Amino acid sequence: MAEDFAPEALAVFEAIKAARGVPEVNNFWKSLAVDPVLLRRTWESLSAVMAPGALDPLVKEMLYLAASMTSGCAYCIASHTAAARARGMTPAQYGELLAVVGMAAETNRLAEALRVPIDPQFQ
Amino acid sequence: MAEDFAPEALAVFEAIKAARGVPEVNNFWKSLAVDPVLLRRTWESLSAVMAPGALDPLVKEMLYLAASMTSGCAYCIASHTAAARARGMTPAQYGELLAVVGMAAETNRLAEALRVPIDPQFQ
Amino acid sequence: MAEDFAPEALAVFEAIKAARGVPEVNNFWKSLAVDPVLLRRTWESLSAVMAPGALDPLVKEMLYLAASMTSGCAYCIASHTAAARARGMTPAQYGELLAVVGMAAETNRLAEALRVPIDPQFQ
Amino acid sequence: MAEDFAPEALAVFEAIKAARGVPEVNNFWKSLAVDPVLLRRTWESLSAVMAPGALDPLVKEMLYLAASMTSGCAYCIASHTAAARARGMTPAQYGELLAVVGMAAETNRLAEALRVPIDPQFQ
Amino acid sequence: MAEDFAPEALAVFEAIKAARGVPEVNNFWKSLAVDPVLLRRTWESLSAVMAPGALDPLVKEMLYLAASMTSGCAYCIASHTAAARARGMTPAQYGELLAVVGMAAETNRLAEALRVPIDPQFQ
Amino acid sequence: MAEDFAPEALAVFEAIKAARGVPEVNNFWKSLAVDPVLLRRTWESLSAVMAPGALDPLVKEMLYLAASMTSGCAYCIASHTAAARARGMTPAQYGELLAVVGMAAETNRLAEALRVPIDPQFQ
Repeated sequence: MAEDFAPEALAVFEAIKAARGVPEVNNFWKSLAVDPVLLRRTWESLSAVMAPGALDPLVKEMLYLAASMTSGCAYCIASHTAAARARGMTPAQYGELLAVVGMAAETNRLAEALRVPIDPQFQ
Repeated sequence: MAEDFAPEALAVFEAIKAARGVPEVNNFWKSLAVDPVLLRRTWESLSAVMAPGALDPLVKEMLYLAASMTSGCAYCIASHTAAARARGMTPAQYGELLAVVGMAAETNRLAEALRVPIDPQFQ
Repeated sequence: MAEDFAPEALAVFEAIKAARGVPEVNNFWKSLAVDPVLLRRTWESLSAVMAPGALDPLVKEMLYLAASMTSGCAYCIASHTAAARARGMTPAQYGELLAVVGMAAETNRLAEALRVPIDPQFQ
Repeated sequence: MAEDFAPEALAVFEAIKAARGVPEVNNFWKSLAVDPVLLRRTWESLSAVMAPGALDPLVKEMLYLAASMTSGCAYCIASHTAAARARGMTPAQYGELLAVVGMAAETNRLAEALRVPIDPQFQ
Repeated sequence: MAEDFAPEALAVFEAIKAARGVPEVNNFWKSLAVDPVLLRRTWESLSAVMAPGALDPLVKEMLYLAASMTSGCAYCIASHTAAARARGMTPAQYGELLAVVGMAAETNRLAEALRVPIDPQFQ
Repeated sequence: MAEDFAPEALAVFEAIKAARGVPEVNNFWKSLAVDPVLLRRTWESLSAVMAPGALDPLVKEMLYLAASMTSGCAYCIASHTAAARARGMTPAQYGELLAVVGMAAETNRLAEALRVPIDPQFQ
């Protein structure tokens, strides 16, 4: 991970820090700065996706975390677990989230292993 | 998928129908009946995991759906999309769920592709 | 899937039919014939890997099936379930195989979700 | 990973130590203790799945390992490689297991890449 | 997949048809129209990513295809195989692409199965 | 990773060093030496797949890297990023490769999440 950044990257860092009220961007953004165009597009897409909407911000964070756990991205699990806690995820909610993700992994494999035909009412 | 079931499997089917108030179990359970012990354990675990708790039932369904979308299980996506809608997921919520799952897939890949070191505050 | 094959592909088909004592190769080999070099190398590697050795042939087939179920390849699940049955996999063994694959999927996700540090004795 | 555990978690640890005849549980169980209900259910399911049955205990361990290698869970690979060795997996068997898992990964990708239609006899 | 679309979705369809010089958008875009905001963002990101740049357009299509084959998305494999052929991918190039994707799948699994430590020169 | 190798493994190491003009093989090959037969077959397959052909060597390396990023193999990402750079991948090309891989991950998930039917022209 480089530590000297192009001006276009630094401009995105400033936008992230302002939007989040943080003194420093995390390593994900610093790593993405290898390509300032990709960095900007990723930040703008993420901001739009995670903005307040029909889903509660904590629910969005937990959905992001469930997806990251399922795809097995260690960095993403670490950062979104922290983000969900910062938004108020309780230990009991975290335990239930883990249980749902684990159960989904098991039944996903079983449904594929058995090649279950999709029921007509789900089409 | 066989259509004649062992008595132990039929007993689980009755439990599922009673718990859900439905006249018929869906194909996932019929397929699992190849092993009645596995069928019973899976149903009992799923019931426990999806029971009311610290998370709202709709949120649990959406987490299950996000995990299933991420692992790419077509049957699971079809059945849990239907289940989430039955629990009240609106079209706007569905759109945001899709956006979060898609965004997570992209940033998960980028974080792994760049081998981003985990920030100390996330440890 | 094309149905007219290059001579180099037909030669591999003959080798497969002779080795397996079957009148026709299955669709996987016909599809691979788009590239006869890839077809030959895949057949030769597969023959070497699945040849009698330190593991029982049925065990090898079940390992192949467990891997295919885990990666979610529908074609591979279908063909290797048939192959394992042809080698003597009983319904009870199939049920236990499904249970192990499902359980592994669940604990794999949980271990990654929790970012469990590897115990010193496993290093 | 926390190091002070709820009484319900400690009770499960005792059950694991008694069943396995070990002086200490490994990190997976300690991590799961964040949710004692999830810890207990996971332990009880795993015990049932891995109990003696129609498949040899070593075969079950190797199937678990093949699934864990395929899903790429580093912790699970480390712990189940150790467990399979403890149950008697020889270096030659380990080499063949690796070869099967690698070959399955390659042909799984090729079958999906070519979108091979499932042969009628595999339905 | 719905067949009556919101005006915001139809506007994106027009943009896609104009950019690609096609009379109809494909099913991916029609399906995404369940959420016109997601549809627009996805189209704009995709256009930016696939625009002429430092990589040849055919190379970009083949990279997209290699990623889609690896993640096992049947729709994406079908559409990007067609797109790569439209950009000039020859049968020989397609065969080599398949071989690389298959080989990567095998060595990826083996590297993870063996938990190979990263060489200092790759850090 | 063992450090004393069987003569059959050392012979493969010599072949790798000669073909690549390097003084030492990397850790992947040393780890594979647990099974010299697997080591030899993997090296011979890899040499054949990556040999000059219809695709440019740099393109092959980038395809390998895109597949490795998508399957999330950290070792493979590290080694093939180095290999692609050694073959001339520029920072701008690397940025575009990352963008394509990230975009593919997002649209792959969306296409599966929406269960998009394959268009007739892609069959």
